[in-house]
Amino acid sequence: MTDQTIAIGDYVLLSLSQRKTYLIRMEQGKSFHTHKGFVKLDDLIGKEYGSAIASSLGFEFIALKPQLRDYVMKCARQTQIMYPKDISLIVMFSGMGPGSRVVEAGTGTGAMTTALAHYVKPDGKIYSYEIREEFQKTAEKNLQRAGLIDFVELKIKDVTVGIDEQDVDAVILDLAIPWLVIPHAYKALKPSATLVSFSPTIDQVVKTVEALNENSFTDIETVECLMRGMQVERGKTRPQTLMTAHSGYITTARKALRKNVSSSLS
Amino acid sequence: MTDQTIAIGDYVLLSLSQRKTYLIRMEQGKSFHTHKGFVKLDDLIGKEYGSAIASSLGFEFIALKPQLRDYVMKCARQTQIMYPKDISLIVMFSGMGPGSRVVEAGTGTGAMTTALAHYVKPDGKIYSYEIREEFQKTAEKNLQRAGLIDFVELKIKDVTVGIDEQDVDAVILDLAIPWLVIPHAYKALKPSATLVSFSPTIDQVVKTVEALNENSFTDIETVECLMRGMQVERGKTRPQTLMTAHSGYITTARKALRKNVSSSLS
Amino acid sequence: MTDQTIAIGDYVLLSLSQRKTYLIRMEQGKSFHTHKGFVKLDDLIGKEYGSAIASSLGFEFIALKPQLRDYVMKCARQTQIMYPKDISLIVMFSGMGPGSRVVEAGTGTGAMTTALAHYVKPDGKIYSYEIREEFQKTAEKNLQRAGLIDFVELKIKDVTVGIDEQDVDAVILDLAIPWLVIPHAYKALKPSATLVSFSPTIDQVVKTVEALNENSFTDIETVECLMRGMQVERGKTRPQTLMTAHSGYITTARKALRKNVSSSLS
Amino acid sequence: MTDQTIAIGDYVLLSLSQRKTYLIRMEQGKSFHTHKGFVKLDDLIGKEYGSAIASSLGFEFIALKPQLRDYVMKCARQTQIMYPKDISLIVMFSGMGPGSRVVEAGTGTGAMTTALAHYVKPDGKIYSYEIREEFQKTAEKNLQRAGLIDFVELKIKDVTVGIDEQDVDAVILDLAIPWLVIPHAYKALKPSATLVSFSPTIDQVVKTVEALNENSFTDIETVECLMRGMQVERGKTRPQTLMTAHSGYITTARKALRKNVSSSLS
Repeated sequence: MTDQTIAIGDYVLLSLSQRKTYLIRMEQGKSFHTHKGFVKLDDLIGKEYGSAIASSLGFEFIALKPQLRDYVMKCARQTQIMYPKDISLIVMFSGMGPGSRVVEAGTGTGAMTTALAHYVKPDGKIYSYEIREEFQKTAEKNLQRAGLIDFVELKIKDVTVGIDEQDVDAVILDLAIPWLVIPHAYKALKPSATLVSFSPTIDQVVKTVEALNENSFTDIETVECLMRGMQVERGKTRPQTLMTAHSGYITTARKALRKNVSSSLS
Repeated sequence: MTDQTIAIGDYVLLSLSQRKTYLIRMEQGKSFHTHKGFVKLDDLIGKEYGSAIASSLGFEFIALKPQLRDYVMKCARQTQIMYPKDISLIVMFSGMGPGSRVVEAGTGTGAMTTALAHYVKPDGKIYSYEIREEFQKTAEKNLQRAGLIDFVELKIKDVTVGIDEQDVDAVILDLAIPWLVIPHAYKALKPSATLVSFSPTIDQVVKTVEALNENSFTDIETVECLMRGMQVERGKTRPQTLMTAHSGYITTARKALRKNVSSSLS
Repeated sequence: MTDQTIAIGDYVLLSLSQRKTYLIRMEQGKSFHTHKGFVKLDDLIGKEYGSAIASSLGFEFIALKPQLRDYVMKCARQTQIMYPKDISLIVMFSGMGPGSRVVEAGTGTGAMTTALAHYVKPDGKIYSYEIREEFQKTAEKNLQRAGLIDFVELKIKDVTVGIDEQDVDAVILDLAIPWLVIPHAYKALKPSATLVSFSPTIDQVVKTVEALNENSFTDIETVECLMRGMQVERGKTRPQTLMTAHSGYITTARKALRKNVSSSLS
Repeated sequence: MTDQTIAIGDYVLLSLSQRKTYLIRMEQGKSFHTHKGFVKLDDLIGKEYGSAIASSLGFEFIALKPQLRDYVMKCARQTQIMYPKDISLIVMFSGMGPGSRVVEAGTGTGAMTTALAHYVKPDGKIYSYEIREEFQKTAEKNLQRAGLIDFVELKIKDVTVGIDEQDVDAVILDLAIPWLVIPHAYKALKPSATLVSFSPTIDQVVKTVEALNENSFTDIETVECLMRGMQVERGKTRPQTLMTAHSGYITTARKALRKNVSSSLS
């Protein structure tokens, strides 16, 4: 039995199609019920991931092994959701990667945290700040489910008061008042490292950019990202009818050391 | 001297602003000339990353440590460029991460390869197929510059003939005729793993989706991603005037095992 | 009593806010009921347009005089809706204006017809083709309500068989198979005049553009138009959360006379 | 000789393709020179509009009769350009049409004025305010060229001081400080009529919306419009590579009469 075989205790993504998926834990003797009939989990246990199974009503389900994107999308949605389109840009723009030490605030329900933890494996660490305990508990469960809890230190602490860590490789902000965290982020970051802030409103962006300028950050840039699905079928291909029009603006900046300017003019 | 100190042989991203950056190699006794004056590299060597330096004309440059995004953007542009907005989505949608074994075709000038190698560190591997030797050489230089060549096996081979690797965690296609590679990708992928294809035209997308359907892939989805910059300044904030209207469509799909359907009806 | 006074028989747009409006006909002794209470129409009759009135539950309604956009948006929605963003571009790209004679196919529920009729007043005419009688009846009612029926000739006829009119100033197509109408449109149009076609799918666009090229049209161009709402409030301004991702592509072309090329080379 | 025949003094749109067009006046004995060879205007005079003509280098030009969109796009570009995508939405959202009396500020080079004049023919009038005489002169020439000067009263006057006209059907604002004009626009408009304001920055939009709320306007709405071109060719169809990312936000509102609220509760 390899990690490609569905085992008791595993999370499986039961997919009826890309638009309808269920993340469920394998338990003996149980069934999973949908509007397209039920599936006996015992029929799945021991099968290879990717296997097809018919529901009681004869509909085909595929038993997929959950991937990062699935775990991110299944994070409980008590807060404003973060989308893969934004999370993936934030990850790349932050410069982080395997081995990185990254500060995140706030944790929320852990969608962003899940992605960050996934990419710093096996030697890195995410330090994630949150002040609302109920969110942290949800995030903890989501990280456990995704098998990533070991790469995260969940902290109940107000990040606007200060950041404990030093020489971190990136700071990721997704909170209502990011501008109050900028001075702390500057201290926590390695020189030249990147801060990324995600905010829904223009006003938050303006205040954040001003704080970045005042705190010796450089290469400050703000973008927004729109993702549109396509309905692909020969002779009928067209963009989808509805889309998310806005989630938030992504602002990035890098820590500059401006005190020691050495002018070659002098 | 730490990795936060600029050393001879290092690549440094000299930034005049986020819109004007130069990726240069530190060599003793040399100068770097721009339209805003020149910078003596000896003045940089030994300084901390993030330091500011004035050019001969008094303009401030920041000496940044290049990050993934910088290396990606500086990959020589003989082929159609891949943008961070697309690369980051492809990385996340592929499900890959540290330790993954990933097949890529084609290599091109290595922009995508650079990103993939960055995220599979330290134990994963990218197997990158290319048939044009001149592209492979450029990609090799770009990967060396980014310090990622050890995580990539560059192959001169026509991927439409076959894929050598087995049980890979993801297959990433960025070539003119992706539909011809779908059957090979199916064989190479682990069950449940993800294929991602990037194509500029609708016709390529339709043919690819048809090939995915014919080859037992599931959860097939196509999206396009638009990124728009914002000019942020109190009282004058507005979206930028011009933007990239289109780079390509991103199609994702997962390998299903459909032969062994076990109907709970029977 | 001027046309600025609400009279019996008038249509009034009762607005609770820009997101909730009702188009109602003034009748004596009647009330109009909403989830925010009812309004007695007798309280409105004789008032000036623009007046505010409180509902039985104390909510303020404004009695607006319906404008083109309102009539267009209130056209019954049995068919795929046409949006003002598309209608307005089609009108401008067509080159039509007061006095123009324009052929339209198909009529649908008359949203586009309403706009065309509005702009050809007082001396122009819309010739609108439709094969489904039930749509034509709906369109007729919508045009009567908007006071524009005199500027439209509603025809029950299959436009793919032929167009009766000649020397028209524009042809507007919004039907499933526009490419079959292109030869007829060529004959009906004045030289140099514009054809506009609106289609949801890529395949329709490709076939239409091919037919335009084969039928001596010139300056062929296809665009799509996206409209995004903004939530404007000091300190909280941001784009809206959801938007229409796609309605259709707009293709324009002009009738060229290519047979009589006079080469100044000969 | 009809209006479909090219005559001396006419303006003709010489089109090499939809991407390259020239608006030229027909004069006897003259030639028009392009990088694709020259065209003798005498060869065009007396021909039908829509005719093809070969340049001295053998390239085909089509002699189109200019339409509204062409005149708008050819307005001299000393100021920030207004695009057909925005102008057409502004026209439709304003509710104006044949016979309307419309106030516009500022005139600029007359692109918007040209469109407004086109649609109020034959009995309406545009009252267009501008404080910079050089712009007004350019606008006057552009309106004469388009044959629309008779439908416009060009005024050299600061619209922030006041609007002379009363009971107008619409007010269109495209100036740096629209919020200062809102009280004057309220007085000038018929009850229930529409004001439209076009502004590039978020800050202008916020101030305008606040002024609209303070001045008893209702149904206040802000949108932005994006237009993307498609490259259509069987097997190669795709969106164009570059697009205009932003021109401005369009804000609309309607004049309410709030003083005479008659509560049916009392």
